[in-house]
Amino acid sequence: MANEGLLAHRIAQLKSSAIRELLKHSKMDNIISLAGGIPSDALFDFEGLNQATQLAITGQPKTAFQYGLTEGSGVLRERIADLCALRGMRTQAEDMVITAGSQQALDLIMRAMVDPGDVFVVERPTYLAALQTLELAQAQVMSVASDDQGMVVDDLEALLHKQRIKGVYIVPNFGNPSGVTLSYERRNQLIALAARYGFVIIEDDPYGELRFTEERQPTLFQLAQEQLGSTEYVLYTSTFSKVLAPGLRLGWAILPHWLLHKVAIIKQAADLHASALSQTVAECYLGLGRLEAQIEKIRHAYKHKGELFAQLVEQELGDVITFNRPKGGMFLWAKFRHEFNTTEWLKQTLHQGVVFVPGEFFFSDRPDHSTLRFSFATATDEQMHEAVARLRRAL
Amino acid sequence: MANEGLLAHRIAQLKSSAIRELLKHSKMDNIISLAGGIPSDALFDFEGLNQATQLAITGQPKTAFQYGLTEGSGVLRERIADLCALRGMRTQAEDMVITAGSQQALDLIMRAMVDPGDVFVVERPTYLAALQTLELAQAQVMSVASDDQGMVVDDLEALLHKQRIKGVYIVPNFGNPSGVTLSYERRNQLIALAARYGFVIIEDDPYGELRFTEERQPTLFQLAQEQLGSTEYVLYTSTFSKVLAPGLRLGWAILPHWLLHKVAIIKQAADLHASALSQTVAECYLGLGRLEAQIEKIRHAYKHKGELFAQLVEQELGDVITFNRPKGGMFLWAKFRHEFNTTEWLKQTLHQGVVFVPGEFFFSDRPDHSTLRFSFATATDEQMHEAVARLRRAL
Repeated sequence: MANEGLLAHRIAQLKSSAIRELLKHSKMDNIISLAGGIPSDALFDFEGLNQATQLAITGQPKTAFQYGLTEGSGVLRERIADLCALRGMRTQAEDMVITAGSQQALDLIMRAMVDPGDVFVVERPTYLAALQTLELAQAQVMSVASDDQGMVVDDLEALLHKQRIKGVYIVPNFGNPSGVTLSYERRNQLIALAARYGFVIIEDDPYGELRFTEERQPTLFQLAQEQLGSTEYVLYTSTFSKVLAPGLRLGWAILPHWLLHKVAIIKQAADLHASALSQTVAECYLGLGRLEAQIEKIRHAYKHKGELFAQLVEQELGDVITFNRPKGGMFLWAKFRHEFNTTEWLKQTLHQGVVFVPGEFFFSDRPDHSTLRFSFATATDEQMHEAVARLRRAL
Repeated sequence: MANEGLLAHRIAQLKSSAIRELLKHSKMDNIISLAGGIPSDALFDFEGLNQATQLAITGQPKTAFQYGLTEGSGVLRERIADLCALRGMRTQAEDMVITAGSQQALDLIMRAMVDPGDVFVVERPTYLAALQTLELAQAQVMSVASDDQGMVVDDLEALLHKQRIKGVYIVPNFGNPSGVTLSYERRNQLIALAARYGFVIIEDDPYGELRFTEERQPTLFQLAQEQLGSTEYVLYTSTFSKVLAPGLRLGWAILPHWLLHKVAIIKQAADLHASALSQTVAECYLGLGRLEAQIEKIRHAYKHKGELFAQLVEQELGDVITFNRPKGGMFLWAKFRHEFNTTEWLKQTLHQGVVFVPGEFFFSDRPDHSTLRFSFATATDEQMHEAVARLRRAL
């Protein structure tokens, strides 16, 4: 067991270090980064954030600077419940815990519910840092393929015939790194399986609001509520990082009560509670009523960036790579048409002055070395043109 | 192993819930709380915090609201290194990680270095939430007595003759809950043992600056640096919570490099980094040069509170309880002269309108039910008079 723990640390260390090295490069002069999953701060609502911060420190200085509740500010949780209602989910302050970004929600959930060796299923490919939280909790990770409709739930069902699992981790909207969205049929199929086989779904939804079209899929949480009459099997998490400001480090998890209590106990030992200053600012920001307009602005800008980037990749690299055209989010996931190692290629592209994340880091097993993830959120139009030209030269 | 994990959770749950229930009561009307280890917000430097926040959001909005480094802001770490230098410790930005309070530093350290069953030694009594982090990491906890000179290091040495240990957790200055400070001789003895037997000392120092006299003990970190020429065996952690504002949720850990890297990897999976807004505000606050004056103000006020409270307890309850007169910090630790159960007594005192924390929660084993912890940090002079009169009536 001790060895398994150390092993998990070693794995986490390995993958993480590679990404960290990349991000160091991405801050060098003249390097255009298509690597980090970082929202564009050129789009931040600094005016609103400034107003909200003024309100927080003048109107509620004691709340902003004193200790608070482990579960998070009651007012903020109520405002988030209202936000969730706008998005089709019925929930309330008592059902949620405010976390330090949705990253912490994942870590706390894993710590609260994973016993070493428990089986969790992820998509191929999936979010790297979710794999890290599973590895730290010593879960056994299995993977199921995804296609342009998201996770292939039929494959999950086939797995369930022979394997008992504790949970499924999924980013159903504009997934990181795949950019794909789980179809309506598969959503229904997935929640039905969860109820039948008694596993939980960890629904990680940081990107759901960043849609480029009017098409909106109901969350798994909402479907469970409407069709099963129970959200006992769905753990929903989201964040302010992609729609407001990641520096606040604020996310939330809506959890069934059997888990919420455990998560709160562990959060108390982990950091007592999320930054009260950040929480008070977020609460005041929501009170200003600016979030929906801000989301519209980001959606519009990312839609432009995503479509332009897809067009440029098609033009310049379409002969060697294939990709899904994202309908939201921040990522374009690509695959070389021929056998290729994108980690090796990165050394060439770095030399040309552009970085991305090699796909292998997003697989829990059997990595596909011919894949890669581009983020189009931060580069300007001009930089995208230049980046794609540099990528071409690096071939 | 799975059972041990669940057991640890159950224990954490149990103790923690009791404290949480107490804190709920402490917010009821007319209840005077001597329970929480909460600094007095009547003493917060709101003017300085306001100035610092203005500087942060107008001067460095992108830093305050965008993603940052996992280890924390480089500038803030440099300012903390300067702060440490004022306190006799030579360190640098590269040696530390900014955490969400020193609570998170403890949790990350335990996650990074504890393999299930590793033995850690704590004082009797010790800080409850440190026990929780040890329990979550599945450490085996042993305890050593403390007296008015702090941990009885001779007893630790006797234990070392028969037991291999991985680490010692200690609050050497104005301990929570004991209020006592480790003597100079015992400090030297402890670091010599760490070097000889090859274990680490987790030096948790949230209260060191809150001294009521001019007497200052060097940190274990400083002694190790000066006398061993190495800090390989000392993990130092402190926080802004008690001297500036706990709502920022900012602490730091100074760690040897073999551990720092592991801690950073785990922190990345745990929450990516501490609130950038909080960090930028703290950095600007330190830039204003107001911290030392603020600490003087708090020291002066807590000294008054601590001395008045000790005097009142002596007068009203001195016939039934004994206690150490604290020379700093926020706590007075007391023990009934006769066999007594303070957890049972709490029901009576609650009825009279005053709460404290029963001592049993601060023991890893063999709790002394006749002990209790009073916090004198938040009550006003008037409330202290009233609280002690109510305690008398509850006897």
